[in-house]
Amino acid sequence: MRMRKIPWAVEYLEQAQCRIKVPEQYKGKWKQFLDTEVLHVEIGCGKGNYSLGMSKLYPQEGFVAIEKNDSAAGVAAKKYDTDTEKGKLCLIRGDAQALNEWFDKQEIDVIHLNFSDPWPKKRYAKRRLSNTRFLEQYKEVLALDGQIQMKTDNAKLFAYSLLEFQNAGFQMIDVNVDYRKEPHPEDVQTEYEEKFIAKGQPIYRCVWKR
Amino acid sequence: MRMRKIPWAVEYLEQAQCRIKVPEQYKGKWKQFLDTEVLHVEIGCGKGNYSLGMSKLYPQEGFVAIEKNDSAAGVAAKKYDTDTEKGKLCLIRGDAQALNEWFDKQEIDVIHLNFSDPWPKKRYAKRRLSNTRFLEQYKEVLALDGQIQMKTDNAKLFAYSLLEFQNAGFQMIDVNVDYRKEPHPEDVQTEYEEKFIAKGQPIYRCVWKR
Repeated sequence: MRMRKIPWAVEYLEQAQCRIKVPEQYKGKWKQFLDTEVLHVEIGCGKGNYSLGMSKLYPQEGFVAIEKNDSAAGVAAKKYDTDTEKGKLCLIRGDAQALNEWFDKQEIDVIHLNFSDPWPKKRYAKRRLSNTRFLEQYKEVLALDGQIQMKTDNAKLFAYSLLEFQNAGFQMIDVNVDYRKEPHPEDVQTEYEEKFIAKGQPIYRCVWKR
Repeated sequence: MRMRKIPWAVEYLEQAQCRIKVPEQYKGKWKQFLDTEVLHVEIGCGKGNYSLGMSKLYPQEGFVAIEKNDSAAGVAAKKYDTDTEKGKLCLIRGDAQALNEWFDKQEIDVIHLNFSDPWPKKRYAKRRLSNTRFLEQYKEVLALDGQIQMKTDNAKLFAYSLLEFQNAGFQMIDVNVDYRKEPHPEDVQTEYEEKFIAKGQPIYRCVWKR
């Protein structure tokens, strides 16, 4: 889903406190910087509710939310800056293609992919965040005992992802084709997720290890 | 789903033409017997519509439908015996645990599991047809380039199966969490499947190779 343009977003991002402007500088030092032993990275955080909520639910763990869309990143940044109850949380505005410039080998414990753009047309398959091109990057930055967690409402993206992850050598450790049929208070709902649940649509979820 | 008892089923099965009473006798000879190069086996055929429809759709291919419930097997047998347009099709009344007594190593090209009993209670997990105990048997009787195709309406059984097949070393080659969203005229709908589609429920499907 595309977001409408937020006029103040770019300007806000320029001075946002939560935003890491030069993530390369933190490469290999994220856990130290966030004072945590567990580093989560959400790729495509949208308006930011998921990482914010997770940082409150798991206050000892560190969260880096990444968003390439200026408007969404701006909304997330403002939310993070003004929420006095947030946990160990910061934001990168940028494209996940640069993931291994920002993070060291095996630095990330959990990668979260939530309701990523499905890029339904086959000619854009390479842009999907579960395309093998990205998966090879995730392998580099993911801890040896790390996990990748994915949620989506999109049946085709989910099926595509199951195959891509398998073919890249990842192993499913948990999979659910109707994740919110039962409550999962241990996992925060994203903005999209709330809408889909309200409509009665199933949420698909999978967790892989390398 | 349990089927109500059909009073004439057991008696009918005794003299059913399509029924193979001693399947062990055909071990290694099924393709010759059915005059086919491609052998399909449906485990748990219920009232038999799937294999019957498939045998019409693929008249050159051979189908063995297996059902352990007497009433369902009786209904299927009567249907097979009276349908003058059926293809290369026969029935075994029995328990799939005996699969490798009936079929030779690598004799089967495609195994079909359609809307199998989910056995939701964990203590009965071993009875699920996608339990590793069965998967090891399937490996024995499945051709080296053979496939296992599974359809179900049950989200939990589907998730369970994805993990069991993966952990038994099978490889997904196709997966769909809303299979009937698009028409698939190449694949017959079972009795259950028609009901679930009518109710708007999603059909989950996966195809594995060894």
